[in-house]
Amino acid sequence: MKRTCTIVKIGGALLESPTALHAFCQDFAALEGEKILVHGGGKRASDLSRQLGHTPRMVNGRRITDAAALEVALMVYAGWANKTLVASLQSLGCAALGLSGADADIIRATKRPVGAVDFGWVGDVERVHGERLRGFLDQGLVPVLCALTHDGKGHMLNTNADTIAAEVAIAMGPHSDCTLMYCFDKPGVLTDIRDENSLLKTLDRKTCTRLEDSGAIATGMLPKLYNGFRALKEGVREVRVGAPAMLQADHTIYTALEL
Amino acid sequence: MKRTCTIVKIGGALLESPTALHAFCQDFAALEGEKILVHGGGKRASDLSRQLGHTPRMVNGRRITDAAALEVALMVYAGWANKTLVASLQSLGCAALGLSGADADIIRATKRPVGAVDFGWVGDVERVHGERLRGFLDQGLVPVLCALTHDGKGHMLNTNADTIAAEVAIAMGPHSDCTLMYCFDKPGVLTDIRDENSLLKTLDRKTCTRLEDSGAIATGMLPKLYNGFRALKEGVREVRVGAPAMLQADHTIYTALEL
Repeated sequence: MKRTCTIVKIGGALLESPTALHAFCQDFAALEGEKILVHGGGKRASDLSRQLGHTPRMVNGRRITDAAALEVALMVYAGWANKTLVASLQSLGCAALGLSGADADIIRATKRPVGAVDFGWVGDVERVHGERLRGFLDQGLVPVLCALTHDGKGHMLNTNADTIAAEVAIAMGPHSDCTLMYCFDKPGVLTDIRDENSLLKTLDRKTCTRLEDSGAIATGMLPKLYNGFRALKEGVREVRVGAPAMLQADHTIYTALEL
Repeated sequence: MKRTCTIVKIGGALLESPTALHAFCQDFAALEGEKILVHGGGKRASDLSRQLGHTPRMVNGRRITDAAALEVALMVYAGWANKTLVASLQSLGCAALGLSGADADIIRATKRPVGAVDFGWVGDVERVHGERLRGFLDQGLVPVLCALTHDGKGHMLNTNADTIAAEVAIAMGPHSDCTLMYCFDKPGVLTDIRDENSLLKTLDRKTCTRLEDSGAIATGMLPKLYNGFRALKEGVREVRVGAPAMLQADHTIYTALEL
């Protein structure tokens, strides 16, 4: 029988509220079966950059990771955010192991080639070391991954956390029946962002494209959705999008993606 | 036959010089047998605190770790320093795995009780999870530990890196024949700090106390030496103090501690 593995992705906003963080960690620690957590860094990275006098560089609304921004990402994602989560989970008896993609060579990435835009120290995932993750799970450990990868040449790279979550779920596919959960601050995909009753119980790719074209889906949601569809296509059993409460066994409010 | 394990401790100063860091990583990666790296954070933590407008609080020359200082320590030690080292070692084919004491519950500590001085978020090591470290070594991984521990109640704690190195070497003792190497910016213990010819090839505890009383040994050296003597007493096979070059097999200039 194949094992089950739940991959949960949370944004960094959760880390800013000790109450929300504690509630989430309790739900995550209580999840049955094998599990992996992937987290973003939230606005703390921008705050720290500003405090240090760096001006965030943006091109077409996308952030450029220059050397100073990478250093801040290392500090905030792999340092503050990752260890705050790990210590909190440990206090709940969850054997958390914090990892960046460089640790144990878990996620190798390629620095994004300079085209019309030079995104700087940003990496596109090349491969996830599924056997190593499996080795940690076999030791009873719970990997907690921050959104940093490495290029194998000595450089750390900034990588989208939604993409990392999907890539990890895909890599675990041959070993386990995987469920991928994208947590954010809404109960799921809403067709009207002001009305929680407009929640979609399911969403398929075709409908998603239609809603995207009509402007009904917020731009910030798209990386989760497209990474989610890709994960399903690559053999991940189930992909859910919703509030952190969906980790609770009796909670049925979320959007399930369908191919 | 017992395995051999080398535990190397470096200060944070090495991290400030890309050339020195690269040279060290090459020597460390080339070390034969199992190995564990323990690192400090160097002056970068003080620099960042200052940049953020925090005034380092000192009592009797000892630093107080208030909440702001702990956050900086998480960022600099577990984030910037640890991942810079891990990425660099990975580029040399060394399967580094960065860890704080909270990760996989490797080092549990007790918050130092408030006495005449409240040191804040500082922890004294309670126990090292030797089996987990052994598990990582058995997977072919190379643990890279920063100087942070946790209390098991959700709090990270600042802990002296020299002490961590000794505690880790002691914990690995039952599994392996351990050599503990304290690297710093001198070739070893000098009886005259201005004269490298005054290097002691060996140093026993009695002589150390005598030199300490006469003021011949710099205060900064004492934690290394006393932790080193304790490690020897607890079964660590060999303790060396010297420059990073002592990692090279043909390098014989260092001070060997003796009971």
